[in-house]
Amino acid sequence: MIPARGRSGAAAETGDVSFAVIGLGYWGPNLVRVLHELAGAEVTAVFDVRQDSCSDIVNRYPSVRAARSYAELLEDDAIDAVAIATPVSTHYKLAAAALRAGKHVFVEKPLAGSTEQAVGLIELARTADRTLMPGHTFLYSPPVNLSRDLIRDGELGEIFFISTSRVNLGLHQSDVSVVWDLGPHDFSILRYWLGEMPTRVSAWSRGCIVDSVPDVAFVNLEFPSGTIAHVELSWLAPSKLRRTAIVGSRKMVVYDDTSVEPIRIFDSGADVPDPETFGEFRMTYRAGDIISPRVDVTEPLQLELADFCRAIAHDVQPKSSAELGLDVIRIAEGVDASLACGGAPVVLTPDSSPAVA
Amino acid sequence: MIPARGRSGAAAETGDVSFAVIGLGYWGPNLVRVLHELAGAEVTAVFDVRQDSCSDIVNRYPSVRAARSYAELLEDDAIDAVAIATPVSTHYKLAAAALRAGKHVFVEKPLAGSTEQAVGLIELARTADRTLMPGHTFLYSPPVNLSRDLIRDGELGEIFFISTSRVNLGLHQSDVSVVWDLGPHDFSILRYWLGEMPTRVSAWSRGCIVDSVPDVAFVNLEFPSGTIAHVELSWLAPSKLRRTAIVGSRKMVVYDDTSVEPIRIFDSGADVPDPETFGEFRMTYRAGDIISPRVDVTEPLQLELADFCRAIAHDVQPKSSAELGLDVIRIAEGVDASLACGGAPVVLTPDSSPAVA
Amino acid sequence: MIPARGRSGAAAETGDVSFAVIGLGYWGPNLVRVLHELAGAEVTAVFDVRQDSCSDIVNRYPSVRAARSYAELLEDDAIDAVAIATPVSTHYKLAAAALRAGKHVFVEKPLAGSTEQAVGLIELARTADRTLMPGHTFLYSPPVNLSRDLIRDGELGEIFFISTSRVNLGLHQSDVSVVWDLGPHDFSILRYWLGEMPTRVSAWSRGCIVDSVPDVAFVNLEFPSGTIAHVELSWLAPSKLRRTAIVGSRKMVVYDDTSVEPIRIFDSGADVPDPETFGEFRMTYRAGDIISPRVDVTEPLQLELADFCRAIAHDVQPKSSAELGLDVIRIAEGVDASLACGGAPVVLTPDSSPAVA
Amino acid sequence: MIPARGRSGAAAETGDVSFAVIGLGYWGPNLVRVLHELAGAEVTAVFDVRQDSCSDIVNRYPSVRAARSYAELLEDDAIDAVAIATPVSTHYKLAAAALRAGKHVFVEKPLAGSTEQAVGLIELARTADRTLMPGHTFLYSPPVNLSRDLIRDGELGEIFFISTSRVNLGLHQSDVSVVWDLGPHDFSILRYWLGEMPTRVSAWSRGCIVDSVPDVAFVNLEFPSGTIAHVELSWLAPSKLRRTAIVGSRKMVVYDDTSVEPIRIFDSGADVPDPETFGEFRMTYRAGDIISPRVDVTEPLQLELADFCRAIAHDVQPKSSAELGLDVIRIAEGVDASLACGGAPVVLTPDSSPAVA
Repeated sequence: MIPARGRSGAAAETGDVSFAVIGLGYWGPNLVRVLHELAGAEVTAVFDVRQDSCSDIVNRYPSVRAARSYAELLEDDAIDAVAIATPVSTHYKLAAAALRAGKHVFVEKPLAGSTEQAVGLIELARTADRTLMPGHTFLYSPPVNLSRDLIRDGELGEIFFISTSRVNLGLHQSDVSVVWDLGPHDFSILRYWLGEMPTRVSAWSRGCIVDSVPDVAFVNLEFPSGTIAHVELSWLAPSKLRRTAIVGSRKMVVYDDTSVEPIRIFDSGADVPDPETFGEFRMTYRAGDIISPRVDVTEPLQLELADFCRAIAHDVQPKSSAELGLDVIRIAEGVDASLACGGAPVVLTPDSSPAVA
Repeated sequence: MIPARGRSGAAAETGDVSFAVIGLGYWGPNLVRVLHELAGAEVTAVFDVRQDSCSDIVNRYPSVRAARSYAELLEDDAIDAVAIATPVSTHYKLAAAALRAGKHVFVEKPLAGSTEQAVGLIELARTADRTLMPGHTFLYSPPVNLSRDLIRDGELGEIFFISTSRVNLGLHQSDVSVVWDLGPHDFSILRYWLGEMPTRVSAWSRGCIVDSVPDVAFVNLEFPSGTIAHVELSWLAPSKLRRTAIVGSRKMVVYDDTSVEPIRIFDSGADVPDPETFGEFRMTYRAGDIISPRVDVTEPLQLELADFCRAIAHDVQPKSSAELGLDVIRIAEGVDASLACGGAPVVLTPDSSPAVA
Repeated sequence: MIPARGRSGAAAETGDVSFAVIGLGYWGPNLVRVLHELAGAEVTAVFDVRQDSCSDIVNRYPSVRAARSYAELLEDDAIDAVAIATPVSTHYKLAAAALRAGKHVFVEKPLAGSTEQAVGLIELARTADRTLMPGHTFLYSPPVNLSRDLIRDGELGEIFFISTSRVNLGLHQSDVSVVWDLGPHDFSILRYWLGEMPTRVSAWSRGCIVDSVPDVAFVNLEFPSGTIAHVELSWLAPSKLRRTAIVGSRKMVVYDDTSVEPIRIFDSGADVPDPETFGEFRMTYRAGDIISPRVDVTEPLQLELADFCRAIAHDVQPKSSAELGLDVIRIAEGVDASLACGGAPVVLTPDSSPAVA
Repeated sequence: MIPARGRSGAAAETGDVSFAVIGLGYWGPNLVRVLHELAGAEVTAVFDVRQDSCSDIVNRYPSVRAARSYAELLEDDAIDAVAIATPVSTHYKLAAAALRAGKHVFVEKPLAGSTEQAVGLIELARTADRTLMPGHTFLYSPPVNLSRDLIRDGELGEIFFISTSRVNLGLHQSDVSVVWDLGPHDFSILRYWLGEMPTRVSAWSRGCIVDSVPDVAFVNLEFPSGTIAHVELSWLAPSKLRRTAIVGSRKMVVYDDTSVEPIRIFDSGADVPDPETFGEFRMTYRAGDIISPRVDVTEPLQLELADFCRAIAHDVQPKSSAELGLDVIRIAEGVDASLACGGAPVVLTPDSSPAVA
């Protein structure tokens, strides 16, 4: 049973959260499908400027209504929450309007197009006492969480570095660069795994197809703990890669989202020589067993939307919090700042814009 | 039949180049093995400060003599050429002495420890009219040459970018960083493939085991033609990777030195939209056939040493020329300069030291 | 527009084939999903003895009605065709009743539990002038059809042999052995590719979990053309394999249904020695390029059900014909006959039961 | 120090076993190389009917003498043992002569061309009190031995079945079929792992290139314990496979000799239902962690020849005993007997020829 939080929608009776889904392009229909089947949620209405996208959904889910305008949805008291899957440039305007109308808001990543917008949305959500959540789906991925546990429990030792490739052939969004399209996945995962924000960022990129839009980027990050990370992002690649190597002082992990064995733990490393005999040292390398643990196969999107409903019901922070979403944007802005000055490293400070070092 | 070039060694009679191999650590015994079996070459003597390394070789090849000192070898008129496989810090001194003694010199990569030293050796070789060649073995690798042909013949179109990973668990040399140990392989390949020197370089690294010695590095390069390249280097990695993706405007190639199919050609790419309708464009991506051409399996080291003998005999430049070796060192120094200033991009100018941009 | 063929269902007006889907276990819901989205078809009703399976479907597809009995469905003139996805032991009874009621019948593979039953169904369909089609989905798989083209067009030369493994961990059906569960996939593919029936069959198997139910089997087939085939089937396997090697005199193909490159063509083979010099011969082997052609990714089930609708509309044989379905059963019975006599080869004659050789 | 056993050769003094290697085709030079470097062994002489094969060896190993005839070697008292790597058809004659001349004998697999010949050689060795050993190298392979330990220690539970593929493009020996060329590897491994002889054998094959010489064969074996095994052998295959799946009631193993992870242990299986509720049962399948244990990389041939020297010195049975070699031949003869009668199963009885069941 969902506590009140001043709810007026249909969910007030059934206990279900009543959703409107906005944006029915590539990702929106997945939101509809998962919400439709999720206990505790129901899809009441959809809206997209392209009317035939709406018709497709209504044909498949006759209980869902196609709204004529976004405003109409926001005025509908039977709707508790909106799930926004539109181009990034519209996130702020749509989310702000929904929060002002008293709706809970789920926005596809990235939360907004700038730090300023994200801070504005967080402020609005606080004022309205509504839940605001960006869709960083990977935080709900079982292999990502298994890796997080290994890192947090010290199983891997000190995290020396993390190197990740997220490349394939094909553009998902047309209004942003590869840094804002694919980057948020890795930035959110790194932020989640390490529990800290990078303090320095640099990047190298090229707009191969359209000069002004980077479609390949190599991003470097440095964290306060000493960990460094490297993120390769590309829309132009011979084959799909989703490979992350986590190199720790005790063990190493390869996380590959395309594999039937998404996590492999390598009991390998360098045995550090005794500092006393440092001058004479000769490293020894150890290569041991490799373990592919059984990983649960639940769909992350389902866990994510369930977390959103739980956050609404119990007035708690979801794992993919708006604050984490803000941090992701700050990293992406750091990358852009570095690119703007030819790849120079940029310092990220907690409360201001990125500054060239 | 080898022309004279003032030769006084045994080869003067048999036509074979008589070699002394210096340094019998990890790589030197391979030089001995290949030279021993190479038509046109013979191994006359070996030298290493560790006497048991010499004994091992002499036991296996009774026709080879163990010298008591390097000086003794240089005084021996029966020796035409020295092949040096010692730590990098000794390359200059050993190679310079050999050139001054009138020997042809083959030095394992990198040619020397600095631009200054490399320029010095090139000068000495010119004065002494002797062949000086660094051992950039990959220039003789059949898949590297097949890739070069595809690039040069325009088969791949414009080269947008090249991304390469060369990582595994284990240190090969103890007196240099991973940038100078593994980097020269990729720097020489890129220089060879693209036929141009990078004009800007940046890098990010960490000394995970020993603070002052980078054992992981992420290197970015920008070339005059617009091509960018990324090189990941590490002695700490869960598994061996030798993977290079070449992304061109027409086709893409994956070169993987650990695979039984070392070259795979992807007939894939993005179809560039008409600039007229630019505002409206929607990229189309094309994924076509993939071809793994049959690749010759000759050992590169054998082709390399044969090229050295040919260069001596005919007084011509080997493919792995000293000038290319100098370029490789200039890139490595650019990387070090970037690392020294925290990852800032560095401009490489043809005739001077790297400068922070 | 669908020609009449004495149709009385809803489709008579809309031109769509109106379906009832029977059996909503593992596979049935896929039939509902695909038929629901297929132009030219509509799902009118479903039936399963487990009432909650029906409810699940009706909740998801509110336009679909749950019938109270199979008999009720058969009496409903608005239904043109039934699609049967029940256990094999029920196929005959359900299909026969539907044909007698004037419905077109699609039955999941195998068509029936015995040659006798399959012949009976074919006879009934002929009498009733209705379309009867077994669901040999792989005949609609793009890589299977690409392989068929390569074989038929002589690209591979003479087909020496075909070796296939279809193994994984897990039981799909509880009333039959692995031979009748997984075997029909391969038997139908081989029958389709080679265009001929095997004349001899032998098999080796074990019931590892339940003595009387083979869960692993090794099947050998010999065809009139000289081609031999081997089929490995298992419900107990460390990892999923779906690998078929087709070895021809000119080229070879590997078809792997689990790979992103499902078809790989190897320009490899043995060069046959001149018969004149036969006594002295020394074979030469040729290993050439490997090509992974781009393969269409259409869902086979969709193509299959569209073919069924087309067969109904135009009164033609579908690719997966009842006759081919009968041949598959004859092979499976041959395998059982061989197993029953300890693995002895069994001769398959066109018009009679398998006989021990 | 090697005990006497009536030794008269050079080894009497140095304690080393003095070898003559006979047959310098594909494999013989490997025997020379390994024996040359093996402590406790030395290569004194070589012989091959092709004189240039001898010259090649002598050039590489100047301490080795090329004999003019086999007889000359047998008369040489300085030679303790002969290692025979000639075509199978010559094994018996060469080995018998050597045993009669008082030499210890190492013969490449298979030990001889027939059961009768193998029994004859064993008899001769017993009479002469000399060590006779067939070269079943895989019994010394670290991953094979790790698998053996897992089987023997009950880690895998009851061994349900073993399925193995040993295929590639290319013929190694010209005087035998693929059954006698590749088969002995698998037959020896199965005999070693299971510690029992199969009691029934059947096979299916084709001579694709030369009618009378099977170049592809599918072999089935049944063991007294209930384990069944399947062996796929081929000289015609699109790519090299060396894959063995061992399916036990508790765990499963994949042994792949071409992989950097040659052994993978799968904690997977079927949970057997309670016999009480048998009629109602529904199997549950369990897929758990996968472990790739670190496997030693010592060259098996080195361990094998060291075992031969140890067997000579201490007058003990080597792991690859002549009796095991005889069993391997009995299996191969069983396969031939099955092939001769069209694939009918054949019963192997301990002391007689194979009989059609």
